[in-house]
Amino acid sequence: MAHVRGCMVIRPWGYRMWELMQAELDLQIRARRHSNVYFPLFIPVSYLQSEAEHVEGFAKEMAVVTHHRLESVDGVLEPTGPLEEPVVVRPTSETIFGKSMAEWIQSYRDLPMRLNQWCNVVRWEMRPRVFLRTTEFLWQEGHTAHESEASAMADVLDAHEMYRTFAEDFLCIPTVPGEKSESERFPGAVKTFTIEAMMQDGRALQAGTSHYLGQNFARAADINFLDRDNQRQHVYTTSFGITTRLIGAVIMTHGDDDGLVLPPAIAPAQVVIVPILRGEASDDILAYAEEVASELARPGGLAPDRVLVDRGERRATDVRWSYIKKGAPVIIEVGQRDAASRTVAYRVRLDHRNVRSAPFAEASEAMTSALREVHEGLLTHARTRLRDGIRSDITSFADMQKFFEENRGLVLAPWCGDPECEAALKPLAVSIRCIPEHMEASGDVCIVDGRRRRFSALFGQSY
Amino acid sequence: MAHVRGCMVIRPWGYRMWELMQAELDLQIRARRHSNVYFPLFIPVSYLQSEAEHVEGFAKEMAVVTHHRLESVDGVLEPTGPLEEPVVVRPTSETIFGKSMAEWIQSYRDLPMRLNQWCNVVRWEMRPRVFLRTTEFLWQEGHTAHESEASAMADVLDAHEMYRTFAEDFLCIPTVPGEKSESERFPGAVKTFTIEAMMQDGRALQAGTSHYLGQNFARAADINFLDRDNQRQHVYTTSFGITTRLIGAVIMTHGDDDGLVLPPAIAPAQVVIVPILRGEASDDILAYAEEVASELARPGGLAPDRVLVDRGERRATDVRWSYIKKGAPVIIEVGQRDAASRTVAYRVRLDHRNVRSAPFAEASEAMTSALREVHEGLLTHARTRLRDGIRSDITSFADMQKFFEENRGLVLAPWCGDPECEAALKPLAVSIRCIPEHMEASGDVCIVDGRRRRFSALFGQSY
Repeated sequence: MAHVRGCMVIRPWGYRMWELMQAELDLQIRARRHSNVYFPLFIPVSYLQSEAEHVEGFAKEMAVVTHHRLESVDGVLEPTGPLEEPVVVRPTSETIFGKSMAEWIQSYRDLPMRLNQWCNVVRWEMRPRVFLRTTEFLWQEGHTAHESEASAMADVLDAHEMYRTFAEDFLCIPTVPGEKSESERFPGAVKTFTIEAMMQDGRALQAGTSHYLGQNFARAADINFLDRDNQRQHVYTTSFGITTRLIGAVIMTHGDDDGLVLPPAIAPAQVVIVPILRGEASDDILAYAEEVASELARPGGLAPDRVLVDRGERRATDVRWSYIKKGAPVIIEVGQRDAASRTVAYRVRLDHRNVRSAPFAEASEAMTSALREVHEGLLTHARTRLRDGIRSDITSFADMQKFFEENRGLVLAPWCGDPECEAALKPLAVSIRCIPEHMEASGDVCIVDGRRRRFSALFGQSY
Repeated sequence: MAHVRGCMVIRPWGYRMWELMQAELDLQIRARRHSNVYFPLFIPVSYLQSEAEHVEGFAKEMAVVTHHRLESVDGVLEPTGPLEEPVVVRPTSETIFGKSMAEWIQSYRDLPMRLNQWCNVVRWEMRPRVFLRTTEFLWQEGHTAHESEASAMADVLDAHEMYRTFAEDFLCIPTVPGEKSESERFPGAVKTFTIEAMMQDGRALQAGTSHYLGQNFARAADINFLDRDNQRQHVYTTSFGITTRLIGAVIMTHGDDDGLVLPPAIAPAQVVIVPILRGEASDDILAYAEEVASELARPGGLAPDRVLVDRGERRATDVRWSYIKKGAPVIIEVGQRDAASRTVAYRVRLDHRNVRSAPFAEASEAMTSALREVHEGLLTHARTRLRDGIRSDITSFADMQKFFEENRGLVLAPWCGDPECEAALKPLAVSIRCIPEHMEASGDVCIVDGRRRRFSALFGQSY
């Protein structure tokens, strides 16, 4: 956090993680026939007017631009040039995409329309927390319009599943996929799907949401089309997004006492080579370090820009420790003896006190297998933690209260479906994170009020 | 333009051009050892205070955020929650990068520091013009800090040359590289370098600027370091950027009466295949169209995502025309006869009334050569136009006045160096675009006031 409260500076190592996430998700979104576009940062307040009238829970904390000029008054810069109509900095872009879609869509031939945008958004944050809850954050927002509910729902569920597999396969973060309860839905959505991750402290983190918006936004922006029967009707829309919060999720899922531990798929450097320079032998050591780097980055091997030789002027042990703290999956140290014997001594981040060694000829294979080991180790640890962190043996409200007073974690229990029961959990800072798709709570009655169960719900404290 | 005055919606075809420019420039910037980062959208007004005091020509037209909440007052949304200190939406980020660099830089070992950011910026625009002058635009801003003037200047000139070759080799836009006169410099810069392009209407377009900032910004933000002699001194900084204005530059450099003409390097689709479906033969025609697409996108051939088969429901001639208007470099039409004879009939955009043909086996080669032809054709035309558009035979102020009253174009002439002479050109809407690096005006006296020449200057009207 820096400069403006709640805003963050994302430095090179963290930003590269985001770029790697972007590159992968962008491919996946494109493969789903989305086109990337860019919409304005500013939204006229009048666009939000009808939303504010019709949408319960309309979020109002947003940056409002009221002036377009700074002027020096007695040596102090003051806002001048009041705008006729104030504009807000986009907190999300449903309304503005909607207005354009209303222009662009004429008939069923234009549908489905699938647009995606990578951009910054702002939600004024009263209790900021680095990466997890920031006033400005970066995200991807997909927006689609369809001729039928079925077509829209198919896209929503597909995005939801894309996020789940992305988090698991790419970030090594297993999640509980499910649907949000009515009170936790995106305002204006008919259904909101979420993937919920559990951080090491036991708190839940909403890691990606996909919304079926029905015809609500289409009616507000009058997005209509001539259907196959030549009748005019409103489209069905969806939206879905993930944010830079995922950088925080990676840090808080995989970190250990020595710092970050990064999944290889998003590690800015997958292998860091640290030459231990020593007097006259330095040239040979450096040359060998570069030779190892070239060997690892051969065609078919690692990406050349993710094998890093750090020739910094700092002491080699300091360099090594700095990359352990930054979570590089594998660190190779090249000393005089390694250069002479043509061996490669390396440490795998999960087990970094242990030095392993491979002959030069087997270095590439050793790295591939070390990276796989890190990926699988992280995923296995996180899966076990999530499984063990979900309590399904708590059966009374008193026990649940006691649990959340003393612990952090998730509780799977039956729920009657009444929002009053959710409200009763507020004093504990507990909410229903989702109605999980693949988990069944045992018991026939709601854990809060004892009425007949309708859902299995996952209860937890969130960020 | 849409929604908020001066802001634009960039639709898929235009945004893809930007993404392709980004991908190439990002590689080039990384190769220059820059790291990408992300800094906050908002800048506290206090950061601009010292700049406003010390920098002549400090630009004041910017979006000012004064409130952080919207509330419904009698049914109308009103700004509430006034901020203690207003913030502006970044018009550029020198000040905020500077504050962080001051924290991060300790000694010469941390230098040079090279950071780059892809983001949106806002400069409130009173006379917006789509792509060329918009209130919000997207750009890349590089910021570097160095231990010496020589090191900083080397980076500035390198960025300047990178932009020149990028515009020419990638966008087919030849430019006049040069230095800005004092009055046209970036406020606070010691030197500003520019590449100036000429649009088809004869107006000049500043297409990329690189600034040597000396120690000006370093003093304002107190960015100091321990040098090699253990003395504390201020760093030397630079910045450089290009924007989405380049999309406009491409459109206005290469367009013809039939619409856009895109350089192959940034064409979202380099080859569009339009199947002309006809009753029972449709399946065969589609199958052959896909076969042609696969053939062109073989490994080593065109990028698969830039060979497009348009299976839309519109009439084939409409589809073809829509891609001619959008500037696709090559359009292949696949009809029943082509499928039967296994030939490929295609149109090259520069000469699209002419249908050429190649046997299937030579299709790939034909496309490669057609794309090269478009690239070279565009570059040659634009070079000729720029060369012919620069008048160096105008030798008196009266003749120059007459020229600019009747024409648009560029005039190369001697200048004494006095800003008064530049001011005298304002009524003609003419300014000095740059002091060109490789062009020499003939004549010994300033074209404006007849004093002794100091520079060759390129005069023109700009956007």
